[in-house]
Order: sequence, then C-alpha cells, then structure tokens
Amino acid sequence: MKIFEEIESEVQSYARSFPRVFNKAKGVFLYDEEGNEYLDFLAGAGTLNYGHNNPIFKEKLLDYIHNDGITHGLDLHTKAKGEFLETFNEKILKPRELDYVVQFTGPTGTNAVEAALKLARNVTGRENIIAFTNGFHGVSLGSLAATGNSHHRGAAGVSLSGTSRIPFDGYLGEDIDTTAYLDKVLSDSSSGVDLPAAVIVETVQGEGGINAASFEWLKNLQTVCRKHEVLLIVDDIQAGCGRTGTYFSFEEAGIYPDIVTMSKSLGGYGLPFAVVLFRPELDLWKPGEHNGTFRGNNFAFVTAKAAIDHYWSDDKLSKEIKRKGDYISSRLEAIIEKYGEGNFTTRGRGMFQGINCVNGDLAGKITRRAFKHNLIIETSGAEDHVVKFLCPLVIDDENLKKGMDIVEQAIKEVCGKEDSIPEEKDYFDNQKLAS
Amino acid sequence: MKIFEEIESEVQSYARSFPRVFNKAKGVFLYDEEGNEYLDFLAGAGTLNYGHNNPIFKEKLLDYIHNDGITHGLDLHTKAKGEFLETFNEKILKPRELDYVVQFTGPTGTNAVEAALKLARNVTGRENIIAFTNGFHGVSLGSLAATGNSHHRGAAGVSLSGTSRIPFDGYLGEDIDTTAYLDKVLSDSSSGVDLPAAVIVETVQGEGGINAASFEWLKNLQTVCRKHEVLLIVDDIQAGCGRTGTYFSFEEAGIYPDIVTMSKSLGGYGLPFAVVLFRPELDLWKPGEHNGTFRGNNFAFVTAKAAIDHYWSDDKLSKEIKRKGDYISSRLEAIIEKYGEGNFTTRGRGMFQGINCVNGDLAGKITRRAFKHNLIIETSGAEDHVVKFLCPLVIDDENLKKGMDIVEQAIKEVCGKEDSIPEEKDYFDNQKLAS
Amino acid sequence: MKIFEEIESEVQSYARSFPRVFNKAKGVFLYDEEGNEYLDFLAGAGTLNYGHNNPIFKEKLLDYIHNDGITHGLDLHTKAKGEFLETFNEKILKPRELDYVVQFTGPTGTNAVEAALKLARNVTGRENIIAFTNGFHGVSLGSLAATGNSHHRGAAGVSLSGTSRIPFDGYLGEDIDTTAYLDKVLSDSSSGVDLPAAVIVETVQGEGGINAASFEWLKNLQTVCRKHEVLLIVDDIQAGCGRTGTYFSFEEAGIYPDIVTMSKSLGGYGLPFAVVLFRPELDLWKPGEHNGTFRGNNFAFVTAKAAIDHYWSDDKLSKEIKRKGDYISSRLEAIIEKYGEGNFTTRGRGMFQGINCVNGDLAGKITRRAFKHNLIIETSGAEDHVVKFLCPLVIDDENLKKGMDIVEQAIKEVCGKEDSIPEEKDYFDNQKLAS
Amino acid sequence: MKIFEEIESEVQSYARSFPRVFNKAKGVFLYDEEGNEYLDFLAGAGTLNYGHNNPIFKEKLLDYIHNDGITHGLDLHTKAKGEFLETFNEKILKPRELDYVVQFTGPTGTNAVEAALKLARNVTGRENIIAFTNGFHGVSLGSLAATGNSHHRGAAGVSLSGTSRIPFDGYLGEDIDTTAYLDKVLSDSSSGVDLPAAVIVETVQGEGGINAASFEWLKNLQTVCRKHEVLLIVDDIQAGCGRTGTYFSFEEAGIYPDIVTMSKSLGGYGLPFAVVLFRPELDLWKPGEHNGTFRGNNFAFVTAKAAIDHYWSDDKLSKEIKRKGDYISSRLEAIIEKYGEGNFTTRGRGMFQGINCVNGDLAGKITRRAFKHNLIIETSGAEDHVVKFLCPLVIDDENLKKGMDIVEQAIKEVCGKEDSIPEEKDYFDNQKLAS
Repeated sequence: MKIFEEIESEVQSYARSFPRVFNKAKGVFLYDEEGNEYLDFLAGAGTLNYGHNNPIFKEKLLDYIHNDGITHGLDLHTKAKGEFLETFNEKILKPRELDYVVQFTGPTGTNAVEAALKLARNVTGRENIIAFTNGFHGVSLGSLAATGNSHHRGAAGVSLSGTSRIPFDGYLGEDIDTTAYLDKVLSDSSSGVDLPAAVIVETVQGEGGINAASFEWLKNLQTVCRKHEVLLIVDDIQAGCGRTGTYFSFEEAGIYPDIVTMSKSLGGYGLPFAVVLFRPELDLWKPGEHNGTFRGNNFAFVTAKAAIDHYWSDDKLSKEIKRKGDYISSRLEAIIEKYGEGNFTTRGRGMFQGINCVNGDLAGKITRRAFKHNLIIETSGAEDHVVKFLCPLVIDDENLKKGMDIVEQAIKEVCGKEDSIPEEKDYFDNQKLAS
Repeated sequence: MKIFEEIESEVQSYARSFPRVFNKAKGVFLYDEEGNEYLDFLAGAGTLNYGHNNPIFKEKLLDYIHNDGITHGLDLHTKAKGEFLETFNEKILKPRELDYVVQFTGPTGTNAVEAALKLARNVTGRENIIAFTNGFHGVSLGSLAATGNSHHRGAAGVSLSGTSRIPFDGYLGEDIDTTAYLDKVLSDSSSGVDLPAAVIVETVQGEGGINAASFEWLKNLQTVCRKHEVLLIVDDIQAGCGRTGTYFSFEEAGIYPDIVTMSKSLGGYGLPFAVVLFRPELDLWKPGEHNGTFRGNNFAFVTAKAAIDHYWSDDKLSKEIKRKGDYISSRLEAIIEKYGEGNFTTRGRGMFQGINCVNGDLAGKITRRAFKHNLIIETSGAEDHVVKFLCPLVIDDENLKKGMDIVEQAIKEVCGKEDSIPEEKDYFDNQKLAS
Repeated sequence: MKIFEEIESEVQSYARSFPRVFNKAKGVFLYDEEGNEYLDFLAGAGTLNYGHNNPIFKEKLLDYIHNDGITHGLDLHTKAKGEFLETFNEKILKPRELDYVVQFTGPTGTNAVEAALKLARNVTGRENIIAFTNGFHGVSLGSLAATGNSHHRGAAGVSLSGTSRIPFDGYLGEDIDTTAYLDKVLSDSSSGVDLPAAVIVETVQGEGGINAASFEWLKNLQTVCRKHEVLLIVDDIQAGCGRTGTYFSFEEAGIYPDIVTMSKSLGGYGLPFAVVLFRPELDLWKPGEHNGTFRGNNFAFVTAKAAIDHYWSDDKLSKEIKRKGDYISSRLEAIIEKYGEGNFTTRGRGMFQGINCVNGDLAGKITRRAFKHNLIIETSGAEDHVVKFLCPLVIDDENLKKGMDIVEQAIKEVCGKEDSIPEEKDYFDNQKLAS
Repeated sequence: MKIFEEIESEVQSYARSFPRVFNKAKGVFLYDEEGNEYLDFLAGAGTLNYGHNNPIFKEKLLDYIHNDGITHGLDLHTKAKGEFLETFNEKILKPRELDYVVQFTGPTGTNAVEAALKLARNVTGRENIIAFTNGFHGVSLGSLAATGNSHHRGAAGVSLSGTSRIPFDGYLGEDIDTTAYLDKVLSDSSSGVDLPAAVIVETVQGEGGINAASFEWLKNLQTVCRKHEVLLIVDDIQAGCGRTGTYFSFEEAGIYPDIVTMSKSLGGYGLPFAVVLFRPELDLWKPGEHNGTFRGNNFAFVTAKAAIDHYWSDDKLSKEIKRKGDYISSRLEAIIEKYGEGNFTTRGRGMFQGINCVNGDLAGKITRRAFKHNLIIETSGAEDHVVKFLCPLVIDDENLKKGMDIVEQAIKEVCGKEDSIPEEKDYFDNQKLAS
C-alpha cells in the first residue's frame, strides 16, 4: 500500500472505499493480495456486465495476442475491427432495425460523448445542448457541461457553456411531464433556451441516483425532439449492453435515437472501448476531424465480438436479466418495508436498481458495513444517498441472493444499531464533508 | 473491406491513406490479410516506440491474463498498479530527481491534458492557459482550446475559451526569442493576455510539423513561468518515452516542469494508458474530482512496467536512439540537398524528425508513393506538408536504412517525375481538399 | 425621409411601424413635420412616464444649460449630481427604508445590467446568473446572456454563457410555483444548475409580453434567494419609476432586493440615464472598475431631481396611477369580452398592461390600424402578440379614454372585418417575417 | 461632499483625483462650487474637443428644447436626426469619399463597439475578433473581451471569449512589423488563432498609453485584413472627431475601414451619443436586432450637427490642431530633455499626446501636483505611467501655453524635489495599491 500513499494522486476515489490491494478477479469475485474473496456488486461501475475475466472472452483474447493480432492500429482497418463490425451489425443492429453507422472514438465514455455533441452541433449548426438534471456524461470539458454534478463541474476552472438544463422525468413531481416544459421552451422564441442541436439523455441515470425514465416520457421526449428537429442522443454508456434487460436501454420504450453513445460493457472484458452510433445521414464528419491515438482498441474488438456472439445471439440473457431484475426488485421492496422508517424508496429498472436512503451518511454506512461482509457495493446520487446494485448480469442465483442478504444484513446493522435514521446533525456533517 | 464502407463513419482517417485490412503485426512490420508486409514508420503515431507486439511485453501480458489478473478495477489499488508505480518511481523518476505524484486519468492523451489543465486552473484560481502556435493537445473540448489546428478546432461547434496563443520557438524568425514576448505580455497588466494558470508546451511539436524547441528557449520559458508564478506543463505524450533520446523529452533542456502529461508509448504495448505527473504540492484534487471508467488500465500497467524494466534500466536505448537519430539526420540532410530545389528543410530531434516539403500536396504524393513500396509513413503540419519519421525506437539498422531508402526513392520518383515542385494550382487544389 | 433610406442602417425598428418624420412633442402627443398630432401610448417604451418635454422639468433644464452648468463631467462630483443624490435619498430611498448606495453607469439600461451582473459575480465569486423565461435585460453581451429573446440572442455571434434559465411565474401553469423548482435545483448539488451569484428578475416583464409576477411569487423568490445566499437583482428599468403604481415596482410585494437597476424614466425628461442601487455591504467595486465616458449625465441629474421633487414628494401620483390603472383594466376586460373569440386575455399591473392577442399577426394589424387613427402603440412578447399599453403616467382622463377608444375601434375593425381570428396560414406568414 | 461619501458607490474614479464639487464649465475651464477655476486638460477623456458648453452649440440646443423638439423618440425618424444625417453625409462622409451607413446605438462607446463586433460576426459567420495589446474598447462584456486592461477584465466574473490578442505597432520593438505576425497566424491553419470576423484597432491607443500606430502599419494592417477577407474596424471613439488633426484619425493613413465606431466628441456638447459606420454591403441587420432605449439621442443630433457645421465645413480646425499639436510636441520634447533622467519619452499624434514617465507613481505625483496649480490632467497606460494631454481642440494659445507651463512646473517640482526617479520601493507600493 505504501507506494500508493507515496506517489498516487489524492484524486483516487474507489480505493478509499475499498482499501485493499486487489490481485485477481474471476466472474463475480475480486481477490486481494492476501487471498480474500469479495463479491462484486459494483462491477466496474457497469463495465463488467459479463463478469470479471469471462473465460469465453479470455480464450479469444489470449489467442489473438498469442497470434500477434494487431494491438494498436490507430484507425486502420483491421480484421478484428471488421469482424466486430459485422457481428455488431448482424446481431445487434439489424435485428432491432437500427440503421446506424459506427464511429470509434477514443476509448472512454466521455470521448464518445464529446464526439456525439460535436457531431450534433456540426450537423445542425446550433450550439445549445439540452441536458437533464442529475445527468452524468463525463468530465472532459465538453461532456462536463452536460453533466449535472457540482463536485465535478466545480473542477472545470472555466465557464461550462453550451448547455441548458431541463428537469428529468419526475423531477417536478409525478404529475408533471417535463417534456411538456421542454416543448414549451422550444416553442417559445423568447424562452431564453436557445433551439438546441440535441437533447442528451440517459434512460436510467446511473451516477444521478438510479433514476429511471418512464417509457412514456422517453416517447414524449422523442416526439418533442422530432417536432423541433432536434437530435435525440441517448447516452447508453452505463444503461446499455443489457443492464436494463435489453441490449439498448431504450428498446422497450420503442424510440429510435438519432445518436447513441456506448462504452463500459461494450468491450465485454473490461477493456477501454467506446463508440458513437448515428443515423447514416448525420455522418458529415470530415476525415480525422475527431481523432485520438487509441480510437478503435483491437483487443476490445475481439472481446466485444465474443460477448455479442455468446450472449446476444438469442434472448436468453435478456430473459435472465428480467428474471433476476424481478428478484432484485422484490428483495429491495421487502427491505425498504422493513427498514428506513418509511423513508427509503426503491429505484431503477432491470438489473440497474437502487435503494434511496435519502441520507448520504446513512447510505455510506451501509456500503461500508457491507464491505465488512466482503461485498463491494457503492452509492450514487447527488448526496451519495442511493445504494446502487450493479452486479454482473451473468451472476448465478446463489451469489445474487448472497449479495442481497449481505446488503439486508448491513442495513439491519446500520439502522438497527442506531435504531433510527441518523439525526440531522449527522446529515449536515456529511454535507460538509461532501462539499 | 465492405463492412467498413457500409457502417464505419466517414471520420476514418489513416484507413484512407493505407487502404488495406491489417491482420498481424510484429516488431517494425504490419501485415495485411493477404500476407503482405509493411514497414511501419508511423508506429501508431508514436505509440509503438518498442515496436508492435514486443515479445518481451507480450509474454508478461499473456501470463497476466492467463492468471486472471485484474483486468478492470476502476481506480482500485491493484498489484499491477503498485508494481508499475514502484518501477516508474525507482527507474524513471528517482534517477532523474523528479519529485512527482502520478494521476491515472482516462486512458487517452486528451484526458490527461484535460486533467492537467483543470488541475492548473484549480491550483492557481486562474482561467487562462498559454498555448503555442501549431500546438496539438487533443480534441475533447478542454484540450481542443489549446490545440492550434483549425481542422479540429472548427469541429467544436462552441466557443473554445480559456486559452491565449503565443508564438512557438522560431515562429517569428530565428532572431526573436518568443519567450521575451511572453514575458512582456505577462508583465504588462494591459496586454490583454490574462495572467495564466499555466503554459502548456510540447518540446517537439508532432502534429504541428515536427518543430523542435531549442533547449535555451525551453529554459527561458521555464524562467518566465517561474517569474510570473505560472505553472509549466510539458505535454510529453508524443515526444516522451524516449522518442527524442531521453525518457522525458525535456531532460536535456535541464528544466523541471510542474506538470507532465504522458500517454502513447507509456503503456509499451500500444494499450490505452495515460497519466499526469505533477509536483506533490499541486495535488489538491478532491477524491474522484476528475474520474473516468477506464482510468488505470491494468493490462497497460503490466506492459508499461515491462517496458521500463527492459529498456530504461540503463542508458543503452538512449544511446541507440541518439545513434539512429544521427543516422536519420544525415540521411535527411542528404535528401534535401538532392531534392526539393532548395526548398525542403529538415526538422526535429532524436528519432522524431521530418522533412518539410513546404507543399502539402507534394508531401502527400511522397508518402503515397512510399506506401507503394510497402512503407507506412505519414505527414504532419498545418498543411500536411512535413513527412514525419516515427519508426519504432527499437528498429534494427537494416530496416531503418530500408525505410530511409524507400523515402528517398519515393521523393526521387515524385520530384523527378514532375521535375519540379508542383505548381500553385496543385497547391490550392490540395488546400481545398483539406478545408 | 430620403436621407433615412439612404444612409440609416437597416437595424431601424420603430421607424418602420410609424413611418413619419417627427418634429415636436408635448405631453402625451408627438407631432410630425406636417403638423399631425399622434397620441403616444408607447411613451419611449416606458421612458416618458411624465410625458414628453414635461414643462416643469424643461424649465429646470433650460436654466441649467443657460447658466453653463456642467454638461459633461465624467464621474466628477458636480452640484447637480449631489442634489440629485440628496433628493433621491430623501424622497425615494429613506421613506421606503431602502438602504442603497448608488452607482452611475453608462446611461443605458443594458450598462446598468452589465454592472449589476459583474458586481454580483465579484461579490459572490460565482459565475452563474439565474434569469427567467421571457426576460429582457438588454443586448450588450453580458445582458444578452440573461435576455430570453432569440431574435436578439441570435445576433450575438458568440456563445452566451454564465446564465441558467428558470420558468417565470405562471410559465408552467397557474398551479406550479416555479420558485419551488428554483429551490429544488439550488438544493440539489447534482441538478446541473450551478449555485448562482444572483437571480435577475423583472416584476413585470415588459418586452416578454407584460407578464406580471404575483407578489407571493416575488416573496417566495426572495426567500429562496436568501436561503441559498444568492443575490436578488430586480431589473426595474421598465417597471420602475411608478409604472406599476409605486416608485419601485417591487414595493407592494414587500421585498427588498439586494441590487436594483434603473433607467428609462429615471431621468424624467427622456434623457439617457441609468443607475444601479445596491446594499452598501456589496459595494466592493474598485475605483473605475466599471467605467464609461457618459456615466452620470448631468442634464439628467437636473431633470431626474425635478421629477422626484414634483411627482414623488407625496402619494398623489401613485394614487392616480392606481385609479387610471383600474380604468385601463376595466376597459381591457370589456374589450376581450367582446373580441378575440374568447382567446384574448389581459395582462399586467398598474399602468403597465396589455392584451394578449395570442397571434402576432393579429396584434400587428391592431396596432397598425390604431396608427391610422393617430395612436402610437406597440406590441411585445415572443411573437409580438401582446398589444402593450404604456401611455405616460400623467395622461389626463380624456386622452386616456381617447386612446382606449382608438384601440377598441382598431380591434373592432380588425376582428370585425375578418370576422374571426386569422387562419393558421396568416400566422405562419408572420412567423416567417419575424424570423 | 457628504452625500457622495454617503451613498455614491466606491466605483467612483475621477472624483478621487479631483476632489471638488464642480458647478459650472465654459470653454477650457471648469469651476467648483467655491468659484475656483480649473484649466481642463482632460476634457471629458476626449469628449469635449470643442470645449465645455460651447456657446454656438448651446444656442442651438436651447432653441431646440425651448421649441419642444423631440427629446426622446426611440429610433423614430425625427427632423433633428434627419438633419444630422444630412450634414454628416455632406460635410464628413462625402468629401472623404467614405461610403458608410450609420447605425445609432445606445449612446455609449461600448455599445457602439458591441454593435460593431456583433455585425462583424454576423456578416462573416465567424466568432473570433483580433484585438491588440493595450487596446481599450469599453467594459460591457462583449467590448471587454477586446479590452486589454486587467483591472477591467478582472471584474468580468465570467470567461471573456471570442478574441485573440496580437501585439500593437511597436510592441515587439521598432524593427518588427506586427502585421506580419498577424498575416502569418492568419495564413497558418494550425496557428490556433481562428480566422477572425474582424480586427478592431485604435489608431492611437488612448487608455493604453497614447500609443500611436504608424501610417504604414495601419496600411499594412488593412492589407492583411483584405488578404484574409477579415473586416477592419477602427474604434475612433477617442482618437476621432479631430483629435489627431483630421476628422477621422485614419484619414492620413489612407485606409478605408469596413466599420468605424464613434462616440465621445461626436455629439459636440458632451452629450451621450454613439454611432457605428459601415460599408452599405455589410448592413445585414434585421430590424431591431441590436436595440436600446436611448439609441439616437435627439439633443445630441442638434449639437453634433452644429459642431460639424461650425468646425468641419472647412479645414481651419484641422490646421489649428496641427499647429497646436506641433507646439505640444515641441514643449514635450523640451520637457523630457530636461527631466526624467533620460527615461521619459513622448508619445502620440496631433493633440493626442503624452509623456511616458515609465513609473506610474511618478506620473501620479505629477498630475496631483498639476492639480494644485489648478490644472486637470490625467494619466493613462497599464501602470498609469503616461501623463495624457487631452485639452479641448479649440483651446486658445494662451491657455495651451499655460497648461503646458503648469505641467512643466509640476514635473520640475516632482522630479526636482526628489532629485531622482522614485526608488523601487515606491514603485511597488504603488503597484500594490493599484492591484
């Protein structure tokens, strides 16, 4: 540990919550240097939908490396890229009747978002982007302007311009359809909300606190976008790749976004990878206009193809996600009924769910307690007040139950011990630390 | 090839210059699907300093994967990270008496630059960043504001703010030390150049046309920065990792930057990886303030460590780079003496050199011709007018000679055939294509 | 007229609606070169609350000029300035228990707004400013960022940054208190609405379509501001100086803004003049930090003082405005009952009222028709769909009635003739002209 | 004085240098309440080229007011406006073969600059504006981005974007033509200086320290602008209206700017007034796109016309300015020969001249001393180190000599008493106060 204290920057974050040196990983487990086993309900913040070091992909990757397949090829055509594109086209896009071209950006989610925003701005000749309350889209400056979190925004050091903020589904209460507000400001030439190039939305806001938009709201959002000739960007970086039960998180809503950003679990094996998908008629990029040394990670082409071949050739995984998602829902419902004095609520969709503990201090105590039981689980939301369940989609029932049991036990210990929600004092102390 | 035409975005760039489907790579060679061999003088735009699929690193990587080492661990402490940090500290930082902490950013150069600029702004409470003419620092919005290239800047779609542009070494002619101009505007409270948080500089501008700053200029730049309490950021993403002859490109200049960005060849094997180094007293990051899913690529930790262990435990590689760099210089000098009608010039330092053909059309013809002789080589500079030599540092003499011979032959064919520099008409046609 | 067509810029605006060459003015009347008399219900867009060339002020002004009082004195202390300040303090500020210092800015409303925003940003160290839908605060870049109108915003040519838009009172429907939304986004550290330096609000939005905020909403707005330690700026440039019945438009709401901007009728005689008022503890300006050649117009000091002395030494004018405002209300109510097929509505407060004709084309026809009856009256609102009644506050009953009669007649002619609201086709034609 | 201390904001500036309450003014003199007479070598910072309360204009103005001429008419056509336009066209534009349209903006210089920048951006579709080191163009946000002074820039509170800074004539030393640098960055697509909409320049920088551009440099600047199809804006607000010897300051340079901003002495009598002049083909304004309540000040139309009629119907004034300018030059030359230990230099052109005292503290002592001799004179420049001579153009020889004598006496007292340039300590104390 000494070397980390000595020369790794203070910016480190997860390492503070889980202060171990990890060594190996397999499936749903992480192992530290001393051989301790940890059940992983964080899963690379949604990057390990297929578990750690999935043996099927691992084999393909080892073969590829062994045979000296291209490792780094800038954006040259490679066999691995071609095969990924064909598989992605045949097994993902075509069956869903999605007519998209694929752009390989620098292999990070934020780079895909930067590219998506640029494209939307260039195609429309407009500057403004509509982003939503509690949205998270990355921390490079272009993406950061669309991100809501003040912790991250405050670090910019310059004006974050070119975005307007609109309330997400439910933000103004259950009765108010915030797309009607969006429609109003876009219809009103004096609203002060400039006609945007695009709207960027997560169907389920991950970092924002597992806020799931309703399908109706998403449909309405698409309708408003079409009405005003505004592009609809779905940022499916965290919610995509099956997390909510379908490959794209927007499938069930029946919408067809103009642009989609993907990353995280796209590569399958946890390797850096990101793409932007968009309707062919939007492909007005000039050669190399948005570039980056590592765009098109060939290792990730190999494992991404393997992931699609193995998990998305039929609807088995989807059904499994639905089944396990239902189980998670029922467990969470039972938990909030028992604990939290009626203040706790559940949130989310598919295997992308959470418990809103209202109070960030409390949620932090719960996840810290869970870690003592060897479960890795994190919080999200403005005040880190939502316990976030992000286990691998391929988790077996036994370990899923085990993880849920540990959380329930942790909540019991935290809420039971103190016999009540912590008092205000605690809450504000926590606020101060966060600020 | 069909699939690329069908669904890969028009943003593709290198694939246009080298329209083959590549399959394998080893050392200084790339191989296409049909088994043709190409000598690689592009080397991942400086990412493959140790060649393709370096067998020493490959072995380590295969072992790591085979043993289920952590692939994706967010920013958790891992054994692989710890070992990389120790090696980097012992073999790179300490021998050079550089006291830096290490920040792992999203694994792209532009993300490291974004982090560096944020840090500088937050530490100083100032907004402005001094960037130089012809500088290239990436294309996400924060970095793009510091990048000079209008092709990339024009794609932003929003105002790029927070930077001021100062002429690079030599930009105003040989006699003028542009750091004196910088000193003057920073000393003059009415200059309109706001006191900056930092200056960001490449010691050799790669994309800008292989413009090498003199050591004296770099020293003066550091002096001006210290005088005005402005941070000095060296963007060593392309020039670092030995390219100019020393591990850091600034070593010979005897300067000690406050912040350094690294990527490209840092990972050794061509894997996405990026870090920011900075003086410990600048480490005012709050936990997670600058984050990213793929920060800290564990595969790259393994290969980066191997690269340092193997190539930077002694000064053999440095000496070799110097020797080969001298060879390249002498060949280039000979070439420009023969061709280009006195207009060609050489540029660069170490194994980071180029021929300025003045005319982008001409340079493009040369590289296209070289490709016909199975050499992959690219141009850089505002008008793509510089033929850029970026072969792996570990190239053997035979292949180095072969590559130089091919370029000479290509120049001969291009300049000979037309018997003169292309006429103006050609030049402007080229302009049009570029715009 | 020829000279105007020949060399005055196309930017001219009111001259298009009222294509005459005006020569003289007195009280509520304008006279053209041919001696025609026009009743003025536009009154310099709220600048002539005391009528044209008010004889009381005129006498003072003539004396001042005759005696070679200071005309231009930069921001030097002058006797005229001192006397204005004393009168303003004694008769306006003190009786209302408003403890403000006075800043003389460049003599335009937009300059006062620029100063107010700067001050708020500098005092708080924050950048963001909350502005409201349909707000209008001027067209220099700083103010323009807070202005809602896309016609004006579109002319900026650069990113308008540093503001967030919140729905004005009633914008989301009668039932929704939009200050609760403001409170929510300011309480939510992930809302994406950065904690602002200030909120800037018009109590009655003039250019935005005569939208009057309720007193309760204004009180709530102040409460939200205080809660989050955000400064409250009331832009009283158009609604102030008695237009709504009290000197400041916010008096009846019982709020005490931190900063107030004033201009238009402040000078009394229609002379360029503008001030910013703010709580003394906010006065952190450095000498000359916000300057301007014409700040502190001495002629306007003279007439502004006369206006206060004559009209604001007692509550007679206030009572008169209330009485006439009631008359206007009753006439407007009667009109919308008769015409507009149930679609017309009335809007506003005091002598700042309007008829919302829904349709900009229709409203334009009405004002053009009124002009044929020698009444000068204009429209406002996003689509120029509100007929705006802005007659001098000092108008006598006869002429007030006459003006109302003309409007009624015009509406009758327009709505009667066409026997219905113009069809959609008309509406969109109008749109096109406006765009 | 009490009222000023009590409720006038700390932003007051000139009132600190000349702490009197002024009462009357006539010609070259200001009078305080106690009847003391002050010779005015500040002249409203260039606003009173024709002296205070010029009796010829005064008569016209009194008549106009007496006869109830339009005082405030928004941008309606008025007889006064028409007559001003005709006179301006016949006596100023036509004789100089300048084909311009006239836009009346809000009556402040900064508003004219805002309009000019908007127009240039809208006409070209580009965002960037080239501004020069030490330029001053006003402090509303759009203008402020072009202004160099950090005292003013620092007050913005938001990013000032959309401008690039280029060294003014002489900034890099006598030998370097900075327009060549401008040409280079505009020719170089990777320079990082985006192709601008316009260049904005003062031919003599007033606030920047009386820096006069050479005619050759101005011609070269125009050539570079034409070459790159960039608009040339001359900000003639302070240098225009005869200050340098011709009506427009750029006449002698033989250039024909695309856009010209005017204010200050344009109105003649010291009344708020500002216009933008531009080539007719640039007049792409939409109606009311740039507006403002006080655009087109009718009182100023009257006095502006009188000023042109009286002073610009022949070349008498021009010749007088030249003659007096020569006198000032010779006096200043003599002064710097005697005092300043060889460090003082003269600067400027026509009746727009200054002594560079190098040291702001010293210059401040000189002007304070002069004030003791009843001369009002100010400093300018980054460190307020230039004593600025801005007496009315119509000053008689006796008073001109008297003013020069007082300055000489003041310098003698300051430099003599201390027998040397103040020491460093003093200088830095002064710095601290200014910061």
